[in-house]
Amino acid sequence: MGEKIRHSRVALFPASFDPVTNGHLDLIHRALRMFDEVVVAVANNVSKSGLFSLEEKLEMLNGILSETDGVRVESFDGLVVEHARALGACAIIRGLRAMSDFEHEFEMALMNRHLEPNVEIIFLASSQDYIYVSSSRLKELARFGASVADFVPPLVEDHLKRKISGS
Amino acid sequence: MGEKIRHSRVALFPASFDPVTNGHLDLIHRALRMFDEVVVAVANNVSKSGLFSLEEKLEMLNGILSETDGVRVESFDGLVVEHARALGACAIIRGLRAMSDFEHEFEMALMNRHLEPNVEIIFLASSQDYIYVSSSRLKELARFGASVADFVPPLVEDHLKRKISGS
Amino acid sequence: MGEKIRHSRVALFPASFDPVTNGHLDLIHRALRMFDEVVVAVANNVSKSGLFSLEEKLEMLNGILSETDGVRVESFDGLVVEHARALGACAIIRGLRAMSDFEHEFEMALMNRHLEPNVEIIFLASSQDYIYVSSSRLKELARFGASVADFVPPLVEDHLKRKISGS
Amino acid sequence: MGEKIRHSRVALFPASFDPVTNGHLDLIHRALRMFDEVVVAVANNVSKSGLFSLEEKLEMLNGILSETDGVRVESFDGLVVEHARALGACAIIRGLRAMSDFEHEFEMALMNRHLEPNVEIIFLASSQDYIYVSSSRLKELARFGASVADFVPPLVEDHLKRKISGS
Amino acid sequence: MGEKIRHSRVALFPASFDPVTNGHLDLIHRALRMFDEVVVAVANNVSKSGLFSLEEKLEMLNGILSETDGVRVESFDGLVVEHARALGACAIIRGLRAMSDFEHEFEMALMNRHLEPNVEIIFLASSQDYIYVSSSRLKELARFGASVADFVPPLVEDHLKRKISGS
Amino acid sequence: MGEKIRHSRVALFPASFDPVTNGHLDLIHRALRMFDEVVVAVANNVSKSGLFSLEEKLEMLNGILSETDGVRVESFDGLVVEHARALGACAIIRGLRAMSDFEHEFEMALMNRHLEPNVEIIFLASSQDYIYVSSSRLKELARFGASVADFVPPLVEDHLKRKISGS
Repeated sequence: MGEKIRHSRVALFPASFDPVTNGHLDLIHRALRMFDEVVVAVANNVSKSGLFSLEEKLEMLNGILSETDGVRVESFDGLVVEHARALGACAIIRGLRAMSDFEHEFEMALMNRHLEPNVEIIFLASSQDYIYVSSSRLKELARFGASVADFVPPLVEDHLKRKISGS
Repeated sequence: MGEKIRHSRVALFPASFDPVTNGHLDLIHRALRMFDEVVVAVANNVSKSGLFSLEEKLEMLNGILSETDGVRVESFDGLVVEHARALGACAIIRGLRAMSDFEHEFEMALMNRHLEPNVEIIFLASSQDYIYVSSSRLKELARFGASVADFVPPLVEDHLKRKISGS
Repeated sequence: MGEKIRHSRVALFPASFDPVTNGHLDLIHRALRMFDEVVVAVANNVSKSGLFSLEEKLEMLNGILSETDGVRVESFDGLVVEHARALGACAIIRGLRAMSDFEHEFEMALMNRHLEPNVEIIFLASSQDYIYVSSSRLKELARFGASVADFVPPLVEDHLKRKISGS
Repeated sequence: MGEKIRHSRVALFPASFDPVTNGHLDLIHRALRMFDEVVVAVANNVSKSGLFSLEEKLEMLNGILSETDGVRVESFDGLVVEHARALGACAIIRGLRAMSDFEHEFEMALMNRHLEPNVEIIFLASSQDYIYVSSSRLKELARFGASVADFVPPLVEDHLKRKISGS
Repeated sequence: MGEKIRHSRVALFPASFDPVTNGHLDLIHRALRMFDEVVVAVANNVSKSGLFSLEEKLEMLNGILSETDGVRVESFDGLVVEHARALGACAIIRGLRAMSDFEHEFEMALMNRHLEPNVEIIFLASSQDYIYVSSSRLKELARFGASVADFVPPLVEDHLKRKISGS
Repeated sequence: MGEKIRHSRVALFPASFDPVTNGHLDLIHRALRMFDEVVVAVANNVSKSGLFSLEEKLEMLNGILSETDGVRVESFDGLVVEHARALGACAIIRGLRAMSDFEHEFEMALMNRHLEPNVEIIFLASSQDYIYVSSSRLKELARFGASVADFVPPLVEDHLKRKISGS
């Protein structure tokens, strides 16, 4: 039926990224197959204290993703659905690693749909390679001196090492 | 950054549709916000005996969706990922009503990704209005003479009534 | 504040009872602490073929419960909520043995509430002694010749033995 | 068989109520269909710091429920089963919003039954309208400036706004 | 503290093996690290009709495992705990692929412990490579003509192909 | 086939033991049926603040287990798989009380297997008597003045009472 001219479709991928893992990156690349632009949005949550500062998180994400076409890295404050609306995003992407994620994510999806019915929340199954990989578990491994090289890009591994030896 | 010219993005929504419910229709409309075309594909599963024949399922879906822009109704045999590949679909859409769906769907997603890494499986949370609505539960209600008018379009309600009184 | 005159409060406890187990009986006795009358209702489900006939199920239940004050044994056809309404029951009682029960029961509760908002569905946690005891598992044990004496009253044990040796 | 004279049956509904939501109120009204009196009991948990003080929680609950026949609002210290015993309650009511609630509630029910076998713990499924509504999620929404008017009575909305703008 | 002389420790690994998969084989090799002998026991369940006959299942298992030291292949009738007792096994091994397995397995473990307190049931997590691989899913794939070479040994692949083309 | 001479098989049972419960002790005795030696290893987690000090935990465990043949009590720092490797343990034992434990344990098992493929993680179902018993729940009970005598040995009960009255 021929090619149509389309508005670009934007998806938002919000997370803490404390720090970004290969699991996150896998999801970003999956999302790029379906959307024209993926906005990687670091939640600037002042109440939740992470290992890395917002600036460090953005620096790592930009260092890793600056060459990837269709990806934009930024931070956001406030409700994720409001940020999605402001961006004109049609979708918010969430990764599911396992059932423990699912319940919480499902309830959040229903609440976010109530707050903003025009943005769809979509769930992607994590790669089986990263099913047990979360930022918090990697930080724990790093603190015990174990290698996290299989789970994060080298840039993040360096940051983690420096951060933990310095703390 | 201006509008770009894009290939149309096709998503596949495969199910048994025995019969189609408002829950299915809600998912189809959600998917249309994110994709250019949604192919509603009735699994022609010869081993699984449903209440309706493939022809009846297609007739109901076409009756309900023929006016909806961007939707195409068809049937398929065999593996869903092969049908997605043949269509050039970038995504397969699955609805999640509750956790009992999740486990099975998650495992199927990992298997399908193994079979065809270029098609992404995405999960959408069902509307809270339809969280307890499944085709099989509606058939049970209809058999007991209860009204299913809140959960299916009138066309499907008619089909259900005729089918069940005739059996 | 003195004693008030009250209508009696009736609760319905519907199940297949194929056969009744100590787990069921435990729930009936718990329910009697909260309600004036508990109607033990055997679902007369023609499509689902059980080991025991409706008559045998009623005979076993009556044999065990005939002395218990506040309990009435009967059968019902059709939707459980309609039977509850006809009885003037304020509650339907369901036992939860474990999480696998919960999902299905939760969805049924939402559907039943939709069908009949004036009857409340309440869940009671099974005794930890019967957490792994279901009618179907006991039938399997009995078929293998194992004793089920810890899980059913003697009357049911006899029925099970005769039934299985005779089949 | 005629009306019998009965002792009043009391049920205890214990929670943090930080703050009370429409989900809680829905459960209280459901419970009133089954019991003569529902005691709404605010846990006075000194170790857990909430947004509202005990006095504020009681003030909100009394403001909303003072006209509701059969409801009494109070606070309690210590074990919930001991409070139930002291009140002569036959049941403790707990709402289940989703499976994540279930596991914890089930284990607590078994422990409470061990501590006090004469009080039954009963679970009610939350309304599908409030399935994703919890006090903690509403506080988070309110902090981000989103409206919570669909999920709490106006009195609670006012308290939340004042509390959060003042903090 | 020096080496001690020990009785050999036997573990039983019971399953349907319809057919054996790489997931099963992975578990058998894990078990061999902990026990002196692993008895691979095919359940001879006459009521459950599988794709393969008991003889075919044993032939495939023997073909694959005949060279593996410490493994013995056999069939059993009746209760698994009775077979374990007869063998003098100290443990029954069960693989867990995901949560959907867990609930059922947990209940079975409690029942089996009741029936035979001297045999311990132990759970091993499946390899992440086989987390979505079950015998029934592989049969479905094979029926659709998809390759199962990544999930079963060549001998089983051949059997599956012949069986399905012949049926 | 006669008795073989075997190396002793060591299993590691790591936990916080804050404090040890009858549930833990039940698992230790189950493990002793399958392994020659069970090393009960108290995690010396400096970041997580428990009720009891490492010294008190070791004192309680030694007091209870000193007479039990085949058990050794010790503490460890760092990753549990490294400690297992250092000990030459073939297995790490984890108890599962319910599904809420399962997800977290399953992910940890996959991660630990990645870190150290030669140590197997095995799960044992808790006794149904202790299914709702955890160290943290017992501490809560003790703080409310409830008896924990059914769930811990007398020595631990004494320690708990002294600790809590003194705090």
